[in-house]
Amino acid sequence: MLIESSNNPKIKKWTKLKQKKYRYQSSEFIVEGEHLVSEAMASNVVKEILVKEGSTVHLNPIFNTMKPTYILKENLFTQIASTETPQPIMAVCEMKAKTIEKDHRLLLLDRIQDPGNLGTLLRSAVAFGFDGVVLGEGCVDVYNEKVIRSTQGAIFKIPIEMHSLKDYVTTLQSKGVKVYGTSLENGSPLGEIEDASKMAVILGNEGQGVSSELLTQTDQNIFIEMTENIESLNVSIAGSIIMYRFRL
Amino acid sequence: MLIESSNNPKIKKWTKLKQKKYRYQSSEFIVEGEHLVSEAMASNVVKEILVKEGSTVHLNPIFNTMKPTYILKENLFTQIASTETPQPIMAVCEMKAKTIEKDHRLLLLDRIQDPGNLGTLLRSAVAFGFDGVVLGEGCVDVYNEKVIRSTQGAIFKIPIEMHSLKDYVTTLQSKGVKVYGTSLENGSPLGEIEDASKMAVILGNEGQGVSSELLTQTDQNIFIEMTENIESLNVSIAGSIIMYRFRL
Repeated sequence: MLIESSNNPKIKKWTKLKQKKYRYQSSEFIVEGEHLVSEAMASNVVKEILVKEGSTVHLNPIFNTMKPTYILKENLFTQIASTETPQPIMAVCEMKAKTIEKDHRLLLLDRIQDPGNLGTLLRSAVAFGFDGVVLGEGCVDVYNEKVIRSTQGAIFKIPIEMHSLKDYVTTLQSKGVKVYGTSLENGSPLGEIEDASKMAVILGNEGQGVSSELLTQTDQNIFIEMTENIESLNVSIAGSIIMYRFRL
Repeated sequence: MLIESSNNPKIKKWTKLKQKKYRYQSSEFIVEGEHLVSEAMASNVVKEILVKEGSTVHLNPIFNTMKPTYILKENLFTQIASTETPQPIMAVCEMKAKTIEKDHRLLLLDRIQDPGNLGTLLRSAVAFGFDGVVLGEGCVDVYNEKVIRSTQGAIFKIPIEMHSLKDYVTTLQSKGVKVYGTSLENGSPLGEIEDASKMAVILGNEGQGVSSELLTQTDQNIFIEMTENIESLNVSIAGSIIMYRFRL
């Protein structure tokens, strides 16, 4: 079906999905580009496919699944896309929350605000076999297009939940999960931390780190050994080094 | 000195520094924000300081060093800045290349194109005590403002050179430096790589990895152990995990 008019109600609806409020109202979000659309198809969350008029899309065999496909005039396609020179395919996906079912390795995020950092952390969490990621209050929205792009599809491969971290940490501890904070002060070097059968790691805000309240709740705090020549590591780097260390 | 006119030759010159060509013509580049300006002052590369008219800048004691300071009308300041809502201070810096003097731990970059990845890798290289970073052909310019911002000041703390990697690898090997590639195929897991007294690690392009020609030149290739659930790690993550492993 070809859509040529900006008054088409679908166009209006899809454009609104750039805003967090509307994403949660309709429980939908958009992914862009062949790779992410393929990953979304494989995860069975695609509701509609949008293709730019006149473009050639190299379809993955998985696209043979029947989904409503709309051909959009270039200006309408660009209006909905969040990149300036978008790849010619997008998919409207439904939010299908996976529940965290195992708690051997969890990642807890306290006010991570940079979309690239959140996306990269999700990608590393999948790479190192973590069981789930918990977003505390104040994190950037996980369905933000930049976050999704940075995950390179990992967003579809790991349970992601949203909780108040204060309460969540208490609950984890009552279930025997050892909770580690990350802090440059009063921490132990990563190389000296022993394995725990069940563990969770908290990473904090890019400027301020993990909140001091949360750091008092943890069982132990970790720092990454580095030279005195620099103040800190990027949070997605620090988190990934720790997850690599504790991969199962 | 207050500058109010966009015809001022200084304004024209500073605006041109957004382009790589002009940066190298004048051997100058611009850093933005109090933190980076402080780091640049500490590294003794600042030539001129630019402040937005009417703003309060929290001066680090190091600013007491005398440097020509210009107050710019807001529209001129914004024109020169590369962020949309810039912090009210910038510094024009001179490129002062530090030469790589030790070769115990080197990072070699093959066509790294994302500014955030390059900046983050430089930051991690400083954190883990690497002796220098070599940029091969096809890397994003290290004086790009986004790169500098991602380094968080690390750009001033480590020697960075530009070379043809093909020749550079050969030279390193003739000096007894063991050169490791990174590759998902035909590599050894990071956990099984033994320490070498002198080593260099090559990281490759975000989409294509290290070029196949370079991979044939290396002494050994490394991969990072991960689940089969994901294709690859972000290159700044992979590189940082490897540098952490081989920090001295």
